[in-house]
Order: sequence, then structure tokens, then C-alpha cells
Amino acid sequence: MPESSLHVAVIGLGAMGLPMASHLATTFSVTGFDPFGPRRELAAQSGVQAEATPAAACPAADIALLAVRDHPQAETALFGPDGVLSTLRVGSPIILTSTVGPDAARDLAAKLEAAGYPLIDAPISGGPVRAGQGDLLIVVGATDGLAIAQPVLDALSSTLTMVGPRPGDGQALKAINQLLAGVHIAAAAEAIALARGLGLDPEVVIQALSQGAAGSFMFADRGPRMLQAYTGGAEVKSRVDIFVKDMGIVTGVGRTAHVPLPLAAAAQQLYLIAEAAGLGAQDDSSVVTILSPDHAKATDQ
Amino acid sequence: MPESSLHVAVIGLGAMGLPMASHLATTFSVTGFDPFGPRRELAAQSGVQAEATPAAACPAADIALLAVRDHPQAETALFGPDGVLSTLRVGSPIILTSTVGPDAARDLAAKLEAAGYPLIDAPISGGPVRAGQGDLLIVVGATDGLAIAQPVLDALSSTLTMVGPRPGDGQALKAINQLLAGVHIAAAAEAIALARGLGLDPEVVIQALSQGAAGSFMFADRGPRMLQAYTGGAEVKSRVDIFVKDMGIVTGVGRTAHVPLPLAAAAQQLYLIAEAAGLGAQDDSSVVTILSPDHAKATDQ
Repeated sequence: MPESSLHVAVIGLGAMGLPMASHLATTFSVTGFDPFGPRRELAAQSGVQAEATPAAACPAADIALLAVRDHPQAETALFGPDGVLSTLRVGSPIILTSTVGPDAARDLAAKLEAAGYPLIDAPISGGPVRAGQGDLLIVVGATDGLAIAQPVLDALSSTLTMVGPRPGDGQALKAINQLLAGVHIAAAAEAIALARGLGLDPEVVIQALSQGAAGSFMFADRGPRMLQAYTGGAEVKSRVDIFVKDMGIVTGVGRTAHVPLPLAAAAQQLYLIAEAAGLGAQDDSSVVTILSPDHAKATDQ
Repeated sequence: MPESSLHVAVIGLGAMGLPMASHLATTFSVTGFDPFGPRRELAAQSGVQAEATPAAACPAADIALLAVRDHPQAETALFGPDGVLSTLRVGSPIILTSTVGPDAARDLAAKLEAAGYPLIDAPISGGPVRAGQGDLLIVVGATDGLAIAQPVLDALSSTLTMVGPRPGDGQALKAINQLLAGVHIAAAAEAIALARGLGLDPEVVIQALSQGAAGSFMFADRGPRMLQAYTGGAEVKSRVDIFVKDMGIVTGVGRTAHVPLPLAAAAQQLYLIAEAAGLGAQDDSSVVTILSPDHAKATDQ
């Protein structure tokens, strides 16, 4: 039984959307949309009434929350046939949790404002497990609609940062988050690959370095998962192709702002190489195998 | 009054050598060598009898500790005229704290072994302040001479990792440490530069991101120092040209081991660009000004 009378429509029940919808359903009335039947069935098991079109999920909603993959999916879900705008009550806020970049967020916000809907730019970080626990990091760029959306953002996050008043401000900070995260994962891969190449035990290297001046969240988190890449691969928590998309946003934003980003660009190429090698749907820790294939160590010794 | 009868000769009283010598002088008898008179005077104020040649510092020493800049300096200090080997008692261990790379350490060890001296490969991390407090991270590759050297290594370090039995093993781990440290500083510079380019407050960005999945020791430590780069520059704690040297070692080791290191290579170029711009002797946080000159923000707005 929902504690709140607020009704949230979650558009996209994927790796992040489904756990967010399930968690929100413990407090709010939640409907959902996903094009894939199996995702709708999983949602139903968590008390989320899931529909086959965005339009079907939104007639009774006070808020729509978008958890789609990218900008084109957001366009279609909002403005397409049977999209959110065909049934969502005019004036209801729309929360965009996807990482689409500042320009795309401003573009969507302008179109939505013309149609009478405020956009809450609120990209998320933290992964599926934390999404299901209301333990996300959310960075927000918005003014209009915040009063209504605040309890939903609070329910999903342990850390909520108000970056600025305009849609796009949250995306700008998220781009910097992804720059650091994507470069740090690639750096961890280089460190593990070099350890293997030099005949050091990578586990000793991770142990010795992850808490010192060389440490990063990603080295401590992805380092051990990279060792699993040689024994069947780590469980997929965050896909390689997410960073193909996000490093594209990062370098695009840098180009537009005329800021050189040589490391982000190198990391972007590494994720593209991994994707070209067929690893797009694998855990991002698998990128280490591009730098240090399993045969490399055996060949050298 | 020294607590121990062990006598240590510290060869090189620079940014790291002087605080190490001063700290060792609280426990051991310590002599020192530096070519520069003012460094010798500073050492004398800390109870370290400092000489103008390595040979003059070593006649009574049980151990020599090298804290020189690079491989050529180590060669000269050991084997040159008035070098360590002209007076150090045969069989006394020689501790190499400098970052010179695994090949150079193995080369030095082979020459020293032929002359009857064991080399303790023991590169250090932590910076001058921690050097003066016995709070360094030391990674050791050695077997011979360790029994005698152990109390000196213990006195200097809060974390002592035995990487392997051979000289070069410590350098290999140190190279991986420097790969991560050098890439993380460069990534922090890109993040700060992009924040400025996007009109975000870099202090808010550091605050929002340094403890999450995007966090690293270097982003939290160098990030705030990078902001000082625009208001006179941060106090010099670690120089740009140290990373010019160390990223050269990193990419050289990677090439020898046939491990691709695209991010380390990009970071190396960034430090070289900074050095070419006249920042070699500045704090490494100054590298941000290459990506985001002070005029850039003003011009964009």
C-alpha cells in the first residue's frame, strides 16, 4: 500500500529503470512502460503495473520519470506516437534520469516547455543495486516542477546535488563524473595489464596501491573484476557500450566548449576498440582484455 | 643521541633525501652528501653531517641510501670519482629509493653485485612531508642485505610492501603506482578544465564528485590545488618534471613488455606540453592551465 498519493510513471524498465520503479513502488503508486514483455513481467512482480506504450502508463500519473538509454529514445518516448505527451496531464513534471549530455537536455527542455511541461534534468549514478535501494547519486539542473518532483528524487537518492537552475546543468556535472569514471576504469585496465606484462601478481598490486596516492574508487572496484575477465568474465553490472555512449558525450561537450581532453579521448577509443571486439554488452571491466589478452602473459613467459 | 648504533649515509639531500635524512637522524647516526652547499647547511641544522662528495659521507657507514633524481645521477653517485664505492665497506647494503625503472635497477644491481654490494630496490611514495615523518609507502624488491636494511626501511615507512626477491621488482610496482597517479592527476585536470569550460563552479564539482564513483586520491588532493593555479599557483609539493620522468619510465616499461598504454601515453604528452610551456619546476597541479588557460574562461563568457 503506497504511503504517498503521488503517482509516478517510469518510462523504461531496463537495468536502472526497473530497480528504480520497484523501489518507488514501496512509497508511491507506480506504473511503467517497457517495449519488452519480459521486463514488464518482472516489473509486475514488484507491484509496478507495466504497459506496452508510454501513453498507456501516463493517464493517471502526476510525474513521468524517463529511464531510457539515450537522446533518441527519450525523443521517441516523449513525442512519438503513443508517447508520454499524448496522455500525461499538462503541467506535470518530467524527470530525465538518462545521461544524454547538456545540449540534448536543453533541447528536450525547450520542446517540453513549449508543450507546457517542466523538465527536471536529473542524471543518476550508482548502478542497479543502489538504484533498488534508493541509494543513488543524483545531480539536478531544474527550477520549475521541483516542488512536485522533490519527494521522488529524495526517495531514489542518498546524495542529491542541486547543480544549477537550468536543465542541462545536471548533465554537465554528469559529463564530468563520466569523464573521471571512464578514464579511471581505463587507467585501472592499463595498471592491471602492465602488472601482468611485468610478471607481477595483479592481486598484490591492487592490494598495495588501491588505498594510497594511486587509488581511485574504480581501481578498487573494477580492479578485482578485471581479474575475473580471464576466468569467465565478471557479472555484467555496467556495460562497455554505456561508456562508448558516455565518452562520446564527454568528448563532444569538450569539443563544443573548446576544452582539450586527451585522456578522455584515449579512453573513448579504448571503449570503441572493446566494442569493435564484440565486448559491447560485457561488463566494462572486460576492457582490460583488449590491452592484455589472455595469451599475452603466456606468450611472454 | 642516536638510539641505534647503525650508521646511514644518505646520498642526495633534495626534496625527499633531506627530510628522510633528518628523520633517520632521530634514530641512527646519519651522514649525508649533496653537491649544493645550501642543502648541506640545511642538513647540518637537522643533525646530519653533510659532505661535498659521496665518498666523504660513506667511510663509517653501515648502509648507503640513495635519494637521487634519476638513473644517471645514481650511476655517478655510486661509480663516479669520489663515489660511494670508493669508501663504503664492501658488503654493505645500498638502498635505492629513487624511481629509475626496473631495467635500470637490475642494471645497477648487477654492477653492484659484481663489486660485492647488495642493492635494495626500494622506491618511495608519499612526498616530502611524509618523508620527514617516517610515513612513506615503500615497495621493495630485494633479498640480500635486507636483514641489515630492515630497521632503516621500517623507520622511513608506514607501509612497507615486499614485492619480490629481486631488484627491479619494487621499481615495477612503483611504475604501476606512477601510471595511476600520473593519469589520475591528468584526469583531474581535464575534469577541472571541463567544469570551467561548461561554466560550472569547479569547487562544487570537486565537492560533489570526489567521494563517489568518480573519486580518486588525486582528484581530492590535486583538484583544490588546481584551482590555486589561477591565483598564483599552489605551493610546489611535487614538480611537473617528476612526472615527465616517471611517465617516460611507465611508457618505456609498457613498450618493453608490449603492453599498450594509451592513457599513460596521453598523460605523458600532457606533462611534456606543460614542461615545454615552462612549468617543469611548478607543482604538478599547474598542468590544468595547459588545458584551461586563465583567459579561456573569460573569452568564453
